[in-house]
Amino acid sequence: MYSFNNDYSEGAHPQIIEALIKTNMEQTAGYSEDYHTENAVTLIKKHIRQDNVAVHILTGGTQVNLTAIAAFLRPHQAAICVSSAHINVHETGAIEATGHKVLSVNTQDGKITPTLIKNVLDEHTDEHMVQPKLVYISDSTELGTIYRKSELEAISNFCKQNNLLLFLDGARLGSALCSTENDLTLEDIARLVDAFYIGGTKNGALFGEALVICKDSLKEDFRYFIKQKGGLLAKGRLLAIQFEELFRENLFFDVATHANKMAIQIKNALLENGFSFVTDSSTNQQFPILPNSLIEKLSKKYLFSINSAIDETTSSIRLVTSWATDETKVREFIEDLA
Amino acid sequence: MYSFNNDYSEGAHPQIIEALIKTNMEQTAGYSEDYHTENAVTLIKKHIRQDNVAVHILTGGTQVNLTAIAAFLRPHQAAICVSSAHINVHETGAIEATGHKVLSVNTQDGKITPTLIKNVLDEHTDEHMVQPKLVYISDSTELGTIYRKSELEAISNFCKQNNLLLFLDGARLGSALCSTENDLTLEDIARLVDAFYIGGTKNGALFGEALVICKDSLKEDFRYFIKQKGGLLAKGRLLAIQFEELFRENLFFDVATHANKMAIQIKNALLENGFSFVTDSSTNQQFPILPNSLIEKLSKKYLFSINSAIDETTSSIRLVTSWATDETKVREFIEDLA
Amino acid sequence: MYSFNNDYSEGAHPQIIEALIKTNMEQTAGYSEDYHTENAVTLIKKHIRQDNVAVHILTGGTQVNLTAIAAFLRPHQAAICVSSAHINVHETGAIEATGHKVLSVNTQDGKITPTLIKNVLDEHTDEHMVQPKLVYISDSTELGTIYRKSELEAISNFCKQNNLLLFLDGARLGSALCSTENDLTLEDIARLVDAFYIGGTKNGALFGEALVICKDSLKEDFRYFIKQKGGLLAKGRLLAIQFEELFRENLFFDVATHANKMAIQIKNALLENGFSFVTDSSTNQQFPILPNSLIEKLSKKYLFSINSAIDETTSSIRLVTSWATDETKVREFIEDLA
Amino acid sequence: MYSFNNDYSEGAHPQIIEALIKTNMEQTAGYSEDYHTENAVTLIKKHIRQDNVAVHILTGGTQVNLTAIAAFLRPHQAAICVSSAHINVHETGAIEATGHKVLSVNTQDGKITPTLIKNVLDEHTDEHMVQPKLVYISDSTELGTIYRKSELEAISNFCKQNNLLLFLDGARLGSALCSTENDLTLEDIARLVDAFYIGGTKNGALFGEALVICKDSLKEDFRYFIKQKGGLLAKGRLLAIQFEELFRENLFFDVATHANKMAIQIKNALLENGFSFVTDSSTNQQFPILPNSLIEKLSKKYLFSINSAIDETTSSIRLVTSWATDETKVREFIEDLA
Repeated sequence: MYSFNNDYSEGAHPQIIEALIKTNMEQTAGYSEDYHTENAVTLIKKHIRQDNVAVHILTGGTQVNLTAIAAFLRPHQAAICVSSAHINVHETGAIEATGHKVLSVNTQDGKITPTLIKNVLDEHTDEHMVQPKLVYISDSTELGTIYRKSELEAISNFCKQNNLLLFLDGARLGSALCSTENDLTLEDIARLVDAFYIGGTKNGALFGEALVICKDSLKEDFRYFIKQKGGLLAKGRLLAIQFEELFRENLFFDVATHANKMAIQIKNALLENGFSFVTDSSTNQQFPILPNSLIEKLSKKYLFSINSAIDETTSSIRLVTSWATDETKVREFIEDLA
Repeated sequence: MYSFNNDYSEGAHPQIIEALIKTNMEQTAGYSEDYHTENAVTLIKKHIRQDNVAVHILTGGTQVNLTAIAAFLRPHQAAICVSSAHINVHETGAIEATGHKVLSVNTQDGKITPTLIKNVLDEHTDEHMVQPKLVYISDSTELGTIYRKSELEAISNFCKQNNLLLFLDGARLGSALCSTENDLTLEDIARLVDAFYIGGTKNGALFGEALVICKDSLKEDFRYFIKQKGGLLAKGRLLAIQFEELFRENLFFDVATHANKMAIQIKNALLENGFSFVTDSSTNQQFPILPNSLIEKLSKKYLFSINSAIDETTSSIRLVTSWATDETKVREFIEDLA
Repeated sequence: MYSFNNDYSEGAHPQIIEALIKTNMEQTAGYSEDYHTENAVTLIKKHIRQDNVAVHILTGGTQVNLTAIAAFLRPHQAAICVSSAHINVHETGAIEATGHKVLSVNTQDGKITPTLIKNVLDEHTDEHMVQPKLVYISDSTELGTIYRKSELEAISNFCKQNNLLLFLDGARLGSALCSTENDLTLEDIARLVDAFYIGGTKNGALFGEALVICKDSLKEDFRYFIKQKGGLLAKGRLLAIQFEELFRENLFFDVATHANKMAIQIKNALLENGFSFVTDSSTNQQFPILPNSLIEKLSKKYLFSINSAIDETTSSIRLVTSWATDETKVREFIEDLA
Repeated sequence: MYSFNNDYSEGAHPQIIEALIKTNMEQTAGYSEDYHTENAVTLIKKHIRQDNVAVHILTGGTQVNLTAIAAFLRPHQAAICVSSAHINVHETGAIEATGHKVLSVNTQDGKITPTLIKNVLDEHTDEHMVQPKLVYISDSTELGTIYRKSELEAISNFCKQNNLLLFLDGARLGSALCSTENDLTLEDIARLVDAFYIGGTKNGALFGEALVICKDSLKEDFRYFIKQKGGLLAKGRLLAIQFEELFRENLFFDVATHANKMAIQIKNALLENGFSFVTDSSTNQQFPILPNSLIEKLSKKYLFSINSAIDETTSSIRLVTSWATDETKVREFIEDLA
């Protein structure tokens, strides 16, 4: 069985493993107060082309989301997101567990718009209701789609005009930035959002998500929040060493480019075979609609998840590629479509 | 500079690194639903000689403490601990952040007793006060001391009689169990407490703490709590692979034995030099009381922390050894005492 | 200006004021441990024809909802309700502030059904999502509609089969029970739900909501939760004295009957004038759809709220009657419709 | 049996009852948006001689404490108080239930000092610990003692210098201000603290505590917090009407003066009989140390609580007077001492 089930099936890119081996017996300070962390932060800032940001590397995405959103909001304030958002569906109510309501809006493509945000604001008029304060988006989204620069600018402007914070979940930011459809850079994102994170877990690292806080007022005392939520790793350098490798040169982008390339090979083959998709994705998640008979056949050789039943004879599935996806297996999969 | 500052200065024991390398390109299910996790849990159960426990491996100690205590208590219930307890001092109010009061009692040696617990119960008489419900202890304690079997039995009995839960923080359980003064086994602990964790981070692993839930009623839905608090690692197998190594044979005990041996060499040398200690520790943390002039001299070659000022000319320091402590450096340190 | 704006515009029914005056100089125990509370609880149990319930009288509806739901759920569990539910819209995220997600479903008439609940259950399949555990309903609903006995039985059965708790918000339960369309009794409700409350604030009292906990496992330690959430009134007898009056004889039902009668007079007049309604309400809240010109005219003499714009020339308004509504004013209003 | 058990045994001062009767059938806006609230706030500001404050009247003390402290602090921040403080002992962990640790210091007289606060600050040095941010004091204290102006100024200065918020619980502020030992005014308090509340429940009202927020940055969106915590009373005017009476003229001070006068009569009689006290209280709570035999005798005619056992033959008791205390009963009690 070969797995297209997700982008965290394997360990880490060999270069990252190598770095962990090489540094293993170093003695360093704990809790991310070591020189690797300092170095990783410098490298990340260099890639963002922005020095005035705070960077904290945490182990996982839910941890970053709950720590950051709880730190950024006052108790009566709420987050706005699309209904398919990770924080709304797949984090066991982690945001609500910190006391904040999540206000969701419906979309087909997993992307929010100023109009959708405005609808939420219009419905929340006084102190009998929560105060919408933060817009949460993902790039790429849960449905594989990405934000164009013009779209992110429109959201950013709307947020600034309405005194809303903008937070971008970048669990799959590598894949988004390396999409051939993408026109955003890390520099753009740091300029347009108040905070975002750069996902390592799904892009070549064993684990690790680098939270970048751009807005000054959100930076204060942030390490307290990480510690309080259980996210301050004793051997914090492990997070840093991985991001040093990802951002020393271009490893972060190279691994994402490979993942996308594998996904697009599959996408093109599916298109050639006449299949349609739930969303038009240029990233490492593809949601083709296939006959159930074909799905059954493929599932004997490949691991993947069923997304939803479309009608009685067809369903959509989710195929995910990664830095580790084997091109030989992709070709085999394509042959098996016939 | 050589560091005796803590037991998480280095990476992992080479055998653990080896295992991570070897398994790196395996494709496995995420979120601790892989066969390594299954295997690690089986090995841990074998060492505990108890099959009817639930085992969950999380990344860090604060994360385990807050996830478990929040899961075990109802909103009006509180934890009891000594005033020096990790949850009371060093976790940024993580337990309170989940809504629960921490009730602390004063001790000299970091150990709680039935009498101290009873005092708390006697003071909490009605619904205008929190309801004390869980006793939190550490073995070894923050002050390097350990519980004797008779002491843990007395606490366990008192808790059972008073309908209290007993939770043991085992961040340094290896060192406690391998102390020459120890007469407890993992099996004893599993029998005497309702839940405990086996620390990996400070005992040879990169990270990882294995929570063992003994009491049936505390097991239900526990994975929901891990996920909600941000503790469910995508590549959960990384936790398991490390515990497979620690418990396949006796690595867990071997590394702790080495740490203790190094600590006792230092302790004996200090005793021979006529120094006294804050506590009588048989584990990998030693708290000697030294002249400030000697402390100053040592601090030029060694990293360690000042515990507290004793009087105008002497202070107590904290020396910590680990699986990675170099015996040559220990000898050098001992020579530098003269 | 005469107000049809809500059912809490005036103070209390004169009989209740009288009782407060009469008992004013009595010395009693505080925090609802007095004999009035004991007596009020006995009277409520008698009306429910059920002795095996726990009754607690709190000051307000949001307070009851947040205290009860937070007490009933474990941290990973969520409440299910309709999207117009008071806890979802009008309580400033009070439930989320206690850590619980509110899962809402869309309806036209403010009423939930087993099918709608089942949809939520079907979408929540594992520990990456919250666990739906409690169904929250209101009778009468935010839209003035009520549950028929067969409907409540169906919901109750579905909840029991699916291990869900059923909680009924009775802020306007008096009006629901006294509707001519109603076939439910307090006894039925106590049999069909796990907990509910009987609203006093909107039915003749100065304030006060009597929470009735039917399910045994939900009763334990409940006073702790009331105190912790700031809901334990020092002079708790004030709550009890009011419920003694409401339930000594039939005052609770008499005042609700008056409110309904006033509402139905208005409703019938509106129907006679050819106007339609957002919902078919038989209770003290009416949502007629009126020409904006008429709304403007009426708003010069009467206070009421605009519900929503229907089209460019018509809107729905909300008219609310109460125990205090003056029949003369109702007649005047009806005349002003012409 | 006559009760000296507390200061909330009776209803309200007759003048307050009268006002509630008189306004009963008025139609007003709900949720404290009525003209009585506006008027009460104006009267309170006049007494404080300070217009630039925000005033919110809530029903009870625990409710004010938890709402204000949770609103004022960020998640990692803690409150400092004496160990006997109401928030530390008698509110079922209400502050912790909002996520904040309460740091307590030991005193004999229930009063905090800059030195005691400084000790807490010195122990909290980094992000592994909570950040002490708010000092909570009560005037009068739980032990009947009061703050002198010089003492409050010293605390206020220390707080300002150390960027700490100062919050004063005034559940018994009337009694404190009307003590013959007092040299503080409402105006002083408003100048020296960041927020405080003026207690009504224990000083002549049925219920009601007027929170006064002095510091501008703490005022924003405060009604959201009241609503979210369940403290926004539908018929909010009931709170205001009572404070209108208390502060229209001097009723607030008159009733406190009576309570104190009754307490001092008892105190003097006890002193004349040679008894000592736990604290030297000039307010409506007295803590005499009496022979158990006398306590037993008194307890046949009077209700009061045992404070603590002093030795085998003596105990301290708590005697509380109020606006409603009957001077005849006080004389009788004094005679019964002999």
